[in-house]
Amino acid sequence: MKKKIIMGIDPGTTITGYGLISVEGKQLKLVAYGVIRLGKLTEASHPQKLKKIYDRISGLVEAYSPDEFAIEAPFHGKNIQAMLKLGRAQGVAIAAALAKEIPVFEYAPKKIKMAVTGNGGSSKEKVSGMLEHILSFKYEESMMDASDALAVAVCHSYQQLPLISGSTKPIKSAKKGGWGAFLAANPDRIKKD
Amino acid sequence: MKKKIIMGIDPGTTITGYGLISVEGKQLKLVAYGVIRLGKLTEASHPQKLKKIYDRISGLVEAYSPDEFAIEAPFHGKNIQAMLKLGRAQGVAIAAALAKEIPVFEYAPKKIKMAVTGNGGSSKEKVSGMLEHILSFKYEESMMDASDALAVAVCHSYQQLPLISGSTKPIKSAKKGGWGAFLAANPDRIKKD
Repeated sequence: MKKKIIMGIDPGTTITGYGLISVEGKQLKLVAYGVIRLGKLTEASHPQKLKKIYDRISGLVEAYSPDEFAIEAPFHGKNIQAMLKLGRAQGVAIAAALAKEIPVFEYAPKKIKMAVTGNGGSSKEKVSGMLEHILSFKYEESMMDASDALAVAVCHSYQQLPLISGSTKPIKSAKKGGWGAFLAANPDRIKKD
Repeated sequence: MKKKIIMGIDPGTTITGYGLISVEGKQLKLVAYGVIRLGKLTEASHPQKLKKIYDRISGLVEAYSPDEFAIEAPFHGKNIQAMLKLGRAQGVAIAAALAKEIPVFEYAPKKIKMAVTGNGGSSKEKVSGMLEHILSFKYEESMMDASDALAVAVCHSYQQLPLISGSTKPIKSAKKGGWGAFLAANPDRIKKD
C-alpha cells in the first residue's frame, strides 16, 4: 500500500493547531505537529490573523506535500460573530489546501474522539494520551494545543468519508468507510471489557 | 494619479457576486462584473461550493490583477450554521486575494449604501441605479446579483480604510479616510435638498 501523508488542522482565531502523520497500510507515524498562535494580534487585526493562518498553512502544505487534508469542524457555537470568524479561519485554511488541489475532509469533534478513543465523549487528556500511544511519541508541553489537529488526521486515516472535497471521487461513494469499516479492519482496537 | 483596479466581492453560498472597476483620480470605470451561481449544488456539496468560489475568484484575480480587494461583510444573521458557512465562503474568497498578496478590505452593507447613495438605508434598486449612473452602464438583467459586489468596489474607491489587509500600511493609520474624507474630496456628490 502506498504511503500517504495526512495533514490535520484545528482552525481557531486564537490558536490554530496542525498535525501531520504518514500512513502506510495500518502503520501510522508522526511527521510533525505544532501550533500557530494568533492571540497576540488584537481584535482589530482579525484580518492579519487570516493572513497568518493562510500563509503558515500554505507554507506547511508546501513543505510536507500532504496527500489529504482533514479539518476539525465544530457545528455549534454560542455566538454569531464568533462563528463567522471561525468560518473565515476555516475558509482560509481550506483554501490553502484547495490551492494545491488537495482533497479536504471534515469531521465533527465527537466523531474524532470516537475514532481515536472509541468514545465520543472522551476527555482531552484521554484523546491526547491515546494519540501518544498510537503515534508512539510524547507531547512537548507547549504543543498540547495541536492535539485536536493530530486527532483529526488520525481519525481521517481510519476512514474514507469526503465531505469537503477537492477529490475526484463522488461524495456518495465514500460512505463505505467510517467507524464500522474501521472496526472491521482493526479488530484488535475494539475494547473488550 | 496611477490607475488602480479594485475587485469587489459579495460572497454567498448560493450566489457570489463580483465586480471590477478601474480608478484613476476621481474617474471610475466599469471593467467587468458577474455572478458565480452555486445554488444547483446541493447542501451536501457545500465543499464543492467552496472549491468553486475559490477557483473562480482565483481565476478572476489572475485575469484582471486587481490592486485591491473589497468584500461586503454582513455582521449579523439569524442562524449559527449559516454564519459558519458564510464565514467559510468569505474565507476562501479572501484567501484567493491573500494568495496573490493583494490587500483585502471589508465594509458593512450599511456603509456601502451610504458611500454609493449617501443613505445607509437605500433600497437595492436605488443602489443599482446609482451604480449605473456612476459607472455609466446598464445592468444585464441576469447580472443584477453582482450589484452589491460593484457597490463595495465603488465604496472602497472612495475610502482608504484597511480592515482585512495584506497591506503594509498599519491599520490605525487608515482612519484618515472614510466618509468624511470622501465628502471633502467630492463636494459635488453631497446631496443638497
